[in-house]
Amino acid sequence: MSDSNNLKVTKRSKVRRLPKRGSQERELIYNILDEALVAHVGFTVDNQPFVIPMAYGREGDRLYLHGSSVSRLLKTLEQGVDVCFTVTLLDGLVIARSLFHHSMNYRSVVLFGKAKLVESEAEKMNALQAFSEQMISGRWSDARIPNSQELKATKILSFPIEEGSAKVRTGPPSDDLEDYALPIWAGELPLKLTAGVPVFDPKLASNIAIPEYLTNYHRGV
Amino acid sequence: MSDSNNLKVTKRSKVRRLPKRGSQERELIYNILDEALVAHVGFTVDNQPFVIPMAYGREGDRLYLHGSSVSRLLKTLEQGVDVCFTVTLLDGLVIARSLFHHSMNYRSVVLFGKAKLVESEAEKMNALQAFSEQMISGRWSDARIPNSQELKATKILSFPIEEGSAKVRTGPPSDDLEDYALPIWAGELPLKLTAGVPVFDPKLASNIAIPEYLTNYHRGV
Repeated sequence: MSDSNNLKVTKRSKVRRLPKRGSQERELIYNILDEALVAHVGFTVDNQPFVIPMAYGREGDRLYLHGSSVSRLLKTLEQGVDVCFTVTLLDGLVIARSLFHHSMNYRSVVLFGKAKLVESEAEKMNALQAFSEQMISGRWSDARIPNSQELKATKILSFPIEEGSAKVRTGPPSDDLEDYALPIWAGELPLKLTAGVPVFDPKLASNIAIPEYLTNYHRGV
Repeated sequence: MSDSNNLKVTKRSKVRRLPKRGSQERELIYNILDEALVAHVGFTVDNQPFVIPMAYGREGDRLYLHGSSVSRLLKTLEQGVDVCFTVTLLDGLVIARSLFHHSMNYRSVVLFGKAKLVESEAEKMNALQAFSEQMISGRWSDARIPNSQELKATKILSFPIEEGSAKVRTGPPSDDLEDYALPIWAGELPLKLTAGVPVFDPKLASNIAIPEYLTNYHRGV
């Protein structure tokens, strides 16, 4: 089992390449999951792997996925097939003197487990609030909340944050000793998902101000 | 077979949810593949799906993946297992009056196929150049190119851009008719992966200027 501070590891979830970059620490994993907006969800049907980008929300030690109640993807996942849930934040390019040592700075999470259908209306509403918080903190109390018909049209699955790991690279490049003498620029180019200026819906009444959570929008702490 | 302008579609690659958002157009697919930096590569081992973030490069109608010659991941892929290669660009948040109609603007590509080991030294060098171009156009001619020892330590796989599709959402939210009267802000919040100020390697000699392809760095056209 996982303890309270760390995720569990089995054969499938062991970090093999550069294990010093790996971590099972819940706090780090939650921070990465909370900063990202899109997960890449992998599953297998008749030996064929599929990787689908999906929005998600986190509530404590579980993630929520959602979609239309007729979605074939969700129908497959709710059958309890094995899922690999991966999230990646790209933090920068690592620019070395040699092309061989070019790299990227990133924070990623790879989780393993099975998804489960959420049946209770109360948990569904909680999950939808988690989605809304994940996307835009503060939006839930401003917008029209889901009605019972919309709730019925939405399928929600929960996925436990139980097994898996984070992997993180930070810092400058690491060149071969003899290359440091070369007159070649080296360092990092930071990258970040950045919000632009909000675009009004053409059908918006002109007297509605842009909420502050959009003008000040940013990901991460 | 795929024709010259469009990727082929089979049962596994048919866009089922919101098919009007799908496209097999090569030009669109290449544009998305060229703008992104990280793919999420899915494969299955003993029924267990894995989704791993990987850098890649494109050269014409093929993608290249690379890693250490001892990488277990690449050893698995080169055996010719089925691979799902997914790339997602998040372009913005779609902010509706109702929470139900919140969405994201995105451009994604999902490809299906098998990877193959690249054996020839010449193709390996070409592939490494494609990686370099994908990451930082112009860098290849500035940095120290790979020597034969580094080439030997690097395993490169090629993956055909042959079957799959793009999926794209753009534009404002689409609310229920009766919700347009609500006094709630609606529109889009554009998102973009943006470069910050280059960070010098602490070991860099002080008289080396930052190349222009880093001070002017941006993704997409």
